[in-house]
Amino acid sequence: MSDKDIKNSFEKSAGTMRGDSTTFGTKLTQEDSNDPNTHSDIHNRIKIDYDKIEKSPSMEEVHKWQREHIKKNDQSKEGYPLNVIIDPAMREMYQVVHDSGMTNVFDRFSQQQPIQCKFCIEGLSCQLCANGPCRINDKVPRGTCGVDAHTMVARNFMYRHVTIGTSANIFHCHQAARTLKAAGEHPDSGLKIRDPEKLKKYADMAGLNANQPIEKLAIEFATWVMDDIHAPFHVPSKAVEAFAPTQRKELWNKLGLFPGGGYSEVAYAQTRCMTNFTSDPVEFLLNSVRLGVANEYQGLFLLDIIQEILMGTQEIVQKKQNMGLLKENMINVVTNGHMPLLADVAIDLASTDEWQQKAKAAGADGIQILGHVCEGQQLMNYKGTHNQKGYGGQEGEWLSQEYLLATGVVDLFMFDYNCTVPTMPLFAKRFGTKLLSTHPVIQLQGTETLDFIPEKMNQQASKALDMAIDAFKQRKSENRKTYIPPHVSDCTVGFSTEPIRNALGGSFDPLIEQIANGNIRGIATIVGCTTARFGQGGSNIFKITKGLIANNILVLSGGCTSSVMEYTGLTDPKAADECGEGLKVVCKQLGIPPVLSYGACVDIGKMTHTAKELADALKVDTNKLPLVIGAPEYLEQKAVADACTAVALGWLVHIAPVPSITGSDVVVKTLTETTETLGLGKVVVELDAEKTVQIYVDHIEKKRKELGLS
Amino acid sequence: MSDKDIKNSFEKSAGTMRGDSTTFGTKLTQEDSNDPNTHSDIHNRIKIDYDKIEKSPSMEEVHKWQREHIKKNDQSKEGYPLNVIIDPAMREMYQVVHDSGMTNVFDRFSQQQPIQCKFCIEGLSCQLCANGPCRINDKVPRGTCGVDAHTMVARNFMYRHVTIGTSANIFHCHQAARTLKAAGEHPDSGLKIRDPEKLKKYADMAGLNANQPIEKLAIEFATWVMDDIHAPFHVPSKAVEAFAPTQRKELWNKLGLFPGGGYSEVAYAQTRCMTNFTSDPVEFLLNSVRLGVANEYQGLFLLDIIQEILMGTQEIVQKKQNMGLLKENMINVVTNGHMPLLADVAIDLASTDEWQQKAKAAGADGIQILGHVCEGQQLMNYKGTHNQKGYGGQEGEWLSQEYLLATGVVDLFMFDYNCTVPTMPLFAKRFGTKLLSTHPVIQLQGTETLDFIPEKMNQQASKALDMAIDAFKQRKSENRKTYIPPHVSDCTVGFSTEPIRNALGGSFDPLIEQIANGNIRGIATIVGCTTARFGQGGSNIFKITKGLIANNILVLSGGCTSSVMEYTGLTDPKAADECGEGLKVVCKQLGIPPVLSYGACVDIGKMTHTAKELADALKVDTNKLPLVIGAPEYLEQKAVADACTAVALGWLVHIAPVPSITGSDVVVKTLTETTETLGLGKVVVELDAEKTVQIYVDHIEKKRKELGLS
Repeated sequence: MSDKDIKNSFEKSAGTMRGDSTTFGTKLTQEDSNDPNTHSDIHNRIKIDYDKIEKSPSMEEVHKWQREHIKKNDQSKEGYPLNVIIDPAMREMYQVVHDSGMTNVFDRFSQQQPIQCKFCIEGLSCQLCANGPCRINDKVPRGTCGVDAHTMVARNFMYRHVTIGTSANIFHCHQAARTLKAAGEHPDSGLKIRDPEKLKKYADMAGLNANQPIEKLAIEFATWVMDDIHAPFHVPSKAVEAFAPTQRKELWNKLGLFPGGGYSEVAYAQTRCMTNFTSDPVEFLLNSVRLGVANEYQGLFLLDIIQEILMGTQEIVQKKQNMGLLKENMINVVTNGHMPLLADVAIDLASTDEWQQKAKAAGADGIQILGHVCEGQQLMNYKGTHNQKGYGGQEGEWLSQEYLLATGVVDLFMFDYNCTVPTMPLFAKRFGTKLLSTHPVIQLQGTETLDFIPEKMNQQASKALDMAIDAFKQRKSENRKTYIPPHVSDCTVGFSTEPIRNALGGSFDPLIEQIANGNIRGIATIVGCTTARFGQGGSNIFKITKGLIANNILVLSGGCTSSVMEYTGLTDPKAADECGEGLKVVCKQLGIPPVLSYGACVDIGKMTHTAKELADALKVDTNKLPLVIGAPEYLEQKAVADACTAVALGWLVHIAPVPSITGSDVVVKTLTETTETLGLGKVVVELDAEKTVQIYVDHIEKKRKELGLS
Repeated sequence: MSDKDIKNSFEKSAGTMRGDSTTFGTKLTQEDSNDPNTHSDIHNRIKIDYDKIEKSPSMEEVHKWQREHIKKNDQSKEGYPLNVIIDPAMREMYQVVHDSGMTNVFDRFSQQQPIQCKFCIEGLSCQLCANGPCRINDKVPRGTCGVDAHTMVARNFMYRHVTIGTSANIFHCHQAARTLKAAGEHPDSGLKIRDPEKLKKYADMAGLNANQPIEKLAIEFATWVMDDIHAPFHVPSKAVEAFAPTQRKELWNKLGLFPGGGYSEVAYAQTRCMTNFTSDPVEFLLNSVRLGVANEYQGLFLLDIIQEILMGTQEIVQKKQNMGLLKENMINVVTNGHMPLLADVAIDLASTDEWQQKAKAAGADGIQILGHVCEGQQLMNYKGTHNQKGYGGQEGEWLSQEYLLATGVVDLFMFDYNCTVPTMPLFAKRFGTKLLSTHPVIQLQGTETLDFIPEKMNQQASKALDMAIDAFKQRKSENRKTYIPPHVSDCTVGFSTEPIRNALGGSFDPLIEQIANGNIRGIATIVGCTTARFGQGGSNIFKITKGLIANNILVLSGGCTSSVMEYTGLTDPKAADECGEGLKVVCKQLGIPPVLSYGACVDIGKMTHTAKELADALKVDTNKLPLVIGAPEYLEQKAVADACTAVALGWLVHIAPVPSITGSDVVVKTLTETTETLGLGKVVVELDAEKTVQIYVDHIEKKRKELGLS
């Protein structure tokens, strides 16, 4: 990156955090961008590799292979990564990318192994101050400042993981609220309020007057949300007060876990993590659980509500998933991230005859917008995108994005949040994809960024679609070699509190009856990310879920786990045949799959909502439910904050891989034992899929017994 | 820590973040607290060591030794740490503590050296996600997610250092504002508004109506400050608008560096640091500078204003410093940290006959409150503590706190913020000191914590003094062996914008005249911390300052650097003799030392204020001043945020030791070169004291030339 590039970046970035013009990020290095032959060179190289691919199996054959494959105990270093990649499309594309010598996530994981640091793995490395870095071992039990292993591990846990994750979820909610406010203020902007009843319901619960024009109410509710997020930490959160279970609120007050405004809470927590500041390890863990409460009620829960108000409460629906949905002669827009605010407007536009005609004028069969990662899981489910001509279905999990671009048919890859990997600019350049960030909060090297101006989303979406059309024209004019893995899964998705209740005839009683009679032993959420680790890569999620449904445990999915459920056929009602007898009866009777996809990782807020409704129906506290929260391939900081939420709500949280806390027995003991004795939940770490299933079963059976169920 | 202890900690911590009762933190382990002989055992051991100390030299001899000592080039590993410890009191006490085998900061630094990590030193280690930890080297140029060296280094810089430091300074301002509000709401609480004129002035600048009862104005101004801190990131800060230099504001707007509410800014920045989020390195640096603006105008600058409103604008004054101020037969209270809000009330109380009588009734000669670290530097300077019977003077820098407790005469060590090292509970237990946190934001293992309730500070201060009396009684009843190093420095301190202007007859013109005529070539701030590193420990600060004043550069100090200036005699007007001819004339004429102590690290806000006044008087932008910002022994995250502030204001910022950014040439180039080309300041890293002095001289001469001064 040259001096001029850096300067350009500084100057051009001006205003993107609160400006009103489209701007550009840091440019890639000159040597990359000056090479006119980059595209064709690469495609010629890739061409050879594409030819190597054997004929793709049918989806039925894929599902059979997946089920045989996970029975083998070969998911370690030997045979990696093909022993863990069970997505048929990613499996093909990984080989293409790997053989071409391009950097990619699975190969990078392998390359990192020899230089991984044992201290960092255990949380015993600190880089905070200029007397360091420090590491702790048996012979050197304290850092220079005097910090011991327990404080170092607990402080690392909070500032590296929990504050970042909590910030992110609350930030997301904040942006959703800004959009709702803009929808109210600018009814002619293209923004829609698709579920006014939901708005009225939650505004009423917030103590607002719901009997006013819906636009005015949208403004008032959005302002109420933003005010709560921005309140001082010492002012109890109104959102927690309005929406959290009564018994939980009492407990949180007793334990000092009832938060104030979320951003102030984050700054409070960050402050404590300074060098020579708080040095009581339990305080950091306590604080993390408190952040977990804010993470839920000023983050996940409310962002889900607001996004459904804007995009339509989700409905059970049949949809399709995987790279086979890409079409060589379509303009393919992939939208990635977690805040489908602009994507929703773009789908509205792309569904008009006007834009389909524009696409045809450019020589395409049409234009389609496909979702990817959690953005896509949400778009699959929202009522607002159902039956939209411009919506093309779901792509995959976060691990697959580099391989997705390597198909060569993605014309525009737009993104608004995590998870967009740092190598996207490299892949975009090589495979002719245009990149567009739709919020300055995420900026990639050399990549265009739109400012976040909700009331201008119509124009911004038009710009995005125009970019895609241009990219398509270029692709065709260059006659580029492409390859689309032909795999497509059928999925029944769109589950959450309301659609389930509606499907059950307006009450949770039939579900409770099935739990009570033992057909359903309990519920497990399998949520969060996928990792590139040995034994993971989606395969651990698949193994565990298969074990749970065989044990008559109903599974809810949210996050990249939903993609895994989709490409393994577990969100297809046919998967009922793979359940234990009780669950099979229920699934067949209702025509549902044994895995109910709630959508994205951020839709965990919808799961806690369902759990609260179930607990209310049973007249018990949330921690009494026969429920386990699982994140068997958790990756990042939002997942850690979500785990803190689950601990706050009293649930057993299974996580894998091993988090970087093993350097302190106090921290391990506190999170895996002590918290439960206080009425909170606790964490359990287990890497083996079979043992994991048994842990879930045992916990659920214990909870059933406590409820007096046999 | 037993399970019960952890549970106790959870339960007892309840409410401390926003409760109303005094509570306790995590207990120390049983094996420590059950030993009734702990005190006397240690004291017997220490006794031997004390006997080893040779007769202490006089202060004049100390100063002579210090000056000879730093001429030697022996400040590396050989002879460490005594080759860097130039505080005579700490020098004695280090030997006592070291010989007794107790853990202490200098020995821990030595112990860490063999296991320091090269990757961490360069910023090339990432522990954010569960695919990691990852490290980057030439052969493995990307982390598993695809992050390159530049993004990894820049992201580590922002989330490990800048967001924490910015949070902390804004949090401090927030607590000061809460106290000012309480002072307005509860005039009978003991809280005082000691400088109503300052309140009126800044409230007026904030656009408030200053013609109203002072209590009402206090509430209104405090609320205005808190509202600005808690505003969304996309709402331009009113504080920046009201108080920042006009030309800077224009530049910041142009570059996208004009911040909104500080806490929202911190959460925005943390969000971007998530895995697979922003991956443009320059964006992180840009964002860091933006946080630097918030750090100043919602942090340092306003907290200084508010604290002076409450505690009295500082005044030039003669005070004393070092451990010799401790008295064997006095009740010695040491107050540590950065927010002397409760300490100020405690000094008010301790100065009453009532409390002096209580002390005498306990068998003491009286009770005195001494400051330590930055808390103490502030207390030295505020008008409110001048001529107070209960104020005993200043102790030392942060490095000395373990050694301070080893004297055995500190009855109560109270603290409210950083820097309180994690080993204080160990030292307190061994040497009979009671520990008391006065804000739940800082909690130590096994240590009592007061809630932060400004309107109850009178009662809380009484409680603290009662604790000190009890501890004194116990000390006497156990007839404990103690040792007080007999060193005391005379200091002239209390400088800042108003006292300097007053001393100059009401205008900065005489100072500007001295700069113009070249008697004073320019100004350098020597601020921030001290480190335990080779070549540092205070000695680097001393060496550089000596070089600067010899070159006729006036030095302002703030932070632990002020303690160094004090114990080396540089805040004594006699030090005028060590200046170059021009500066000597000025100092002698005005009767001031060549180092003007502004007080604490947080008093950097007062220095930027003085700089703004000078720039205004010269009718130039702040980046035109013949000024260098130096932090030659920076330690922690607030110092990094403050460096970002200085870059935002257009200044050359010298830092040492080397920050953990050397793994990326893009990051290094951006911070050390590119920023300056945009009208911002830049960073220079230099470890050698002589070269450092030359860098300052060259920069100041360059700036003089640009201003047309010879």
